[in-house]
Amino acid sequence: MAYAGPLSLLTDLYELTMMQGYYSRDPGALAVFELFYRRNPFDGGYAVFCGAESLVRELEEFRFSDQDLAYLSTLGMFREDFLRYLSGFSFQGGIFAVPEGTVIFPNEPVLRIRGTLMEAQLVESLALNMINYQTLIATKTSRIVRAAAGKPVLEFGLRRAHGPDGAISASRASYIGGASSTSNTLAGRLFGIPVSGTMAHSWVMSFPSEIESFREYARLYPERCVLLVDTFNTLKSGVPNAIRVFAEMGPARPGDLRGIRIDSGDFGPLSRNARAMLDSAGLADIKIFVSGDMDENTIDQLTSQGAPVDAWGVGTRLVTAWDDPALTGVYKIAARSSSGGSMEPCIKISDQDEKTTSPGAKNITRFFGRGGLMICDLVHLEDESSEIAAMTDIRSDIPAISTVDGAEPAVISGYDRAELLLGEIMRGGASTVPFMPLDEIRMRRERGMNSLGGAYRRLRDPKRYMVRQSERLWQMKQDLLSRIRQEYAPDTFRSSG
Amino acid sequence: MAYAGPLSLLTDLYELTMMQGYYSRDPGALAVFELFYRRNPFDGGYAVFCGAESLVRELEEFRFSDQDLAYLSTLGMFREDFLRYLSGFSFQGGIFAVPEGTVIFPNEPVLRIRGTLMEAQLVESLALNMINYQTLIATKTSRIVRAAAGKPVLEFGLRRAHGPDGAISASRASYIGGASSTSNTLAGRLFGIPVSGTMAHSWVMSFPSEIESFREYARLYPERCVLLVDTFNTLKSGVPNAIRVFAEMGPARPGDLRGIRIDSGDFGPLSRNARAMLDSAGLADIKIFVSGDMDENTIDQLTSQGAPVDAWGVGTRLVTAWDDPALTGVYKIAARSSSGGSMEPCIKISDQDEKTTSPGAKNITRFFGRGGLMICDLVHLEDESSEIAAMTDIRSDIPAISTVDGAEPAVISGYDRAELLLGEIMRGGASTVPFMPLDEIRMRRERGMNSLGGAYRRLRDPKRYMVRQSERLWQMKQDLLSRIRQEYAPDTFRSSG
Repeated sequence: MAYAGPLSLLTDLYELTMMQGYYSRDPGALAVFELFYRRNPFDGGYAVFCGAESLVRELEEFRFSDQDLAYLSTLGMFREDFLRYLSGFSFQGGIFAVPEGTVIFPNEPVLRIRGTLMEAQLVESLALNMINYQTLIATKTSRIVRAAAGKPVLEFGLRRAHGPDGAISASRASYIGGASSTSNTLAGRLFGIPVSGTMAHSWVMSFPSEIESFREYARLYPERCVLLVDTFNTLKSGVPNAIRVFAEMGPARPGDLRGIRIDSGDFGPLSRNARAMLDSAGLADIKIFVSGDMDENTIDQLTSQGAPVDAWGVGTRLVTAWDDPALTGVYKIAARSSSGGSMEPCIKISDQDEKTTSPGAKNITRFFGRGGLMICDLVHLEDESSEIAAMTDIRSDIPAISTVDGAEPAVISGYDRAELLLGEIMRGGASTVPFMPLDEIRMRRERGMNSLGGAYRRLRDPKRYMVRQSERLWQMKQDLLSRIRQEYAPDTFRSSG
Repeated sequence: MAYAGPLSLLTDLYELTMMQGYYSRDPGALAVFELFYRRNPFDGGYAVFCGAESLVRELEEFRFSDQDLAYLSTLGMFREDFLRYLSGFSFQGGIFAVPEGTVIFPNEPVLRIRGTLMEAQLVESLALNMINYQTLIATKTSRIVRAAAGKPVLEFGLRRAHGPDGAISASRASYIGGASSTSNTLAGRLFGIPVSGTMAHSWVMSFPSEIESFREYARLYPERCVLLVDTFNTLKSGVPNAIRVFAEMGPARPGDLRGIRIDSGDFGPLSRNARAMLDSAGLADIKIFVSGDMDENTIDQLTSQGAPVDAWGVGTRLVTAWDDPALTGVYKIAARSSSGGSMEPCIKISDQDEKTTSPGAKNITRFFGRGGLMICDLVHLEDESSEIAAMTDIRSDIPAISTVDGAEPAVISGYDRAELLLGEIMRGGASTVPFMPLDEIRMRRERGMNSLGGAYRRLRDPKRYMVRQSERLWQMKQDLLSRIRQEYAPDTFRSSG
């Protein structure tokens, strides 16, 4: 890769200017930051959390190189003592997060970093960069996989992804999201994701004739032979030539994959006609692959029209998250302490009410009912966790506030079991849990999706999943709000007006 | 970065399976591939070519590592002799391209790779990945910069970019596209792009009060002091507190930058009220920065409403190319030869007419008229280049075909000068031109934009720029089309039906 060092400088400049400010004022100050997102992407009902392992791996190696420091000193805004401090800097903080592959909802804290105010601030840009994108792609993929209704989804997005790493992390996230394979060979090597791929139009065009190109491919790859049939004319040339070559190949052996791929045109009629031609040639076992600007909507439409497609190749619209290309993830300070002082909750209020944050270090308890279906989530202060666990152990009713930004009282009852979602993944700058095999994360995503009722998983107009907040959290927020409203606005207005 | 090796495996698996096919059949076969895009992004009238240097740098280092080869051999589809060949492989091809920063149009070949069929095929995914994304972002930025009408545009996109490299290449491309600076410190170090940034809400929230946070920032950074005023209440708290602190700071020295940043709310009234408050406090020199989900449309709207904004911070919608997140760039074979044979043009026809490709190795001549304004482009065969240059030297009329996918005759006349666009940038696997400083590429983009008439640059409903084709190119395409239509479709249909 053009750049191959650690990512310490992959940070917004203001993180460094703020960090120097904290350094000069109170280097021992501590803080808790939380990452959450504001709005479900794709007008869907949920997101799939992804990217934490990539973040932890980077943070373990987080160092400023001599080149980094030399560059920073050229900017003329950093003092010698601060640069010296950076030269010895490593990330020593702690992280709690929901496991990758977990289904998550807006305004829930899904990753929490506690450390010095300096270090927790510094890693904001990197954390958001990695979690926002991978979560977005895992979520998009889970929608596409749902639309494909059991047929495999092959991720083909490398050429349209946003740069090399956009492609690498997209492949990881889409496998977690449920894709069956990737075309990206490097992602295959790095993550052990199954790789797949057949031929491009240029293969066909580099031969004197289409049938010669098919024959040569069949000779080379008899065990995995998927022929691209739309280079000249799908039904008049591609499918007939493919049929001829499959006939010449003789019967397939068990485990062999034979198919055709259609990459352009009107996929409904083309796939139906191709199926009929294959079937009447006695080739019912030949699979039909379809690719070309596919997403959950086109796949859903073709599937409900009964198009006989056996596998979908999905690229551009998956890896760019075409219709909603950025997750609205943010990283907000939730508590802070001066050096030696006690941790105080903090809050950001906003002219836009929904942008007002929730104070304090928090966790989430998820409630499950009959058949393992999720009932609701409860966002609460971290130091309520054991108390809530004690109550849920005996299936006690839990008083709560109706929603995460609401005010009405509510009760959580009639649940079968409850689960605390955020667990420790990093302590003192070192990861505390082994990295999970990708297949396990993928299965967690699948279990999570299955425990989310169908109404919440719908592609369009999903039901809104209930995220409640604890009474203590709500009360803390009210206290802070009224204190701030009293202290700041009127006062300041008078003194300057 | 999590992965730091060369990008040889960053390729779709099918490039490797096809490559093995070429290897076993005719390793000496040569080919010409061309990269072009099909549709102007953002409903605009043009694109800005970008990413070629990044590609050349990667291709110069293109090697398969032992790990790469060990991984490939586990896939069970590559033969020993082919893997041995790959172990000694380096890219030895040649590349012609339009210079980065050039304004380009649909269906023009903007980058051309000639080499063995194997190597030219192999690098497809990487070439598309880099050129598609950087071109998309340079184009998006040029639109945003146009909407900002002379006010600086600061790129802030790191946290919403598609992975670490998505952020790094976005910063490069948006600087070429006209952004004044980036917040991405690593991009600053790697490319020498000016970096900028001020403070986050967490800075304000980490102090006991807003005014204390402003005072401390002013003490630390008196020369570049931009205060974020929307943490509590922009007009009742943030702006009054900022005014108090600016007053305490005393007069600015020449070159100092002082300002406020508004990141949420209704930007029109907020900026007007803030301006009025600053002015009546005698602080007419304090700049107003606005950020928060900005793109060319919101900036254009605010600008035409007369919002007194001095600089724009643009993030998410720039680096994700929000409303059109993938350039439709493709890479198609244009000519091929067997080992020792002569180069033959080739073509891909399609059920969708506009997807039929143009044959042969091509170049573009661009015609300029009065005042240096661009008149039209002519796509022609590379071996027509000198003949056309001889004609344009004497301002001779050039017969042509009306459009690049048209059939009517036309004449190019009345031009002042003409320029051949594609030049050699790589030969025998080594770059042949020095890498251009980013500022020069940026100026080329600016000159190019200025030579494109306003009607083509409009944000909405731009006029379509004329791209013509040479008669010889058109004739070659017709000949190939009729030969293929005769040879394939009816024949094959009969033989299999």
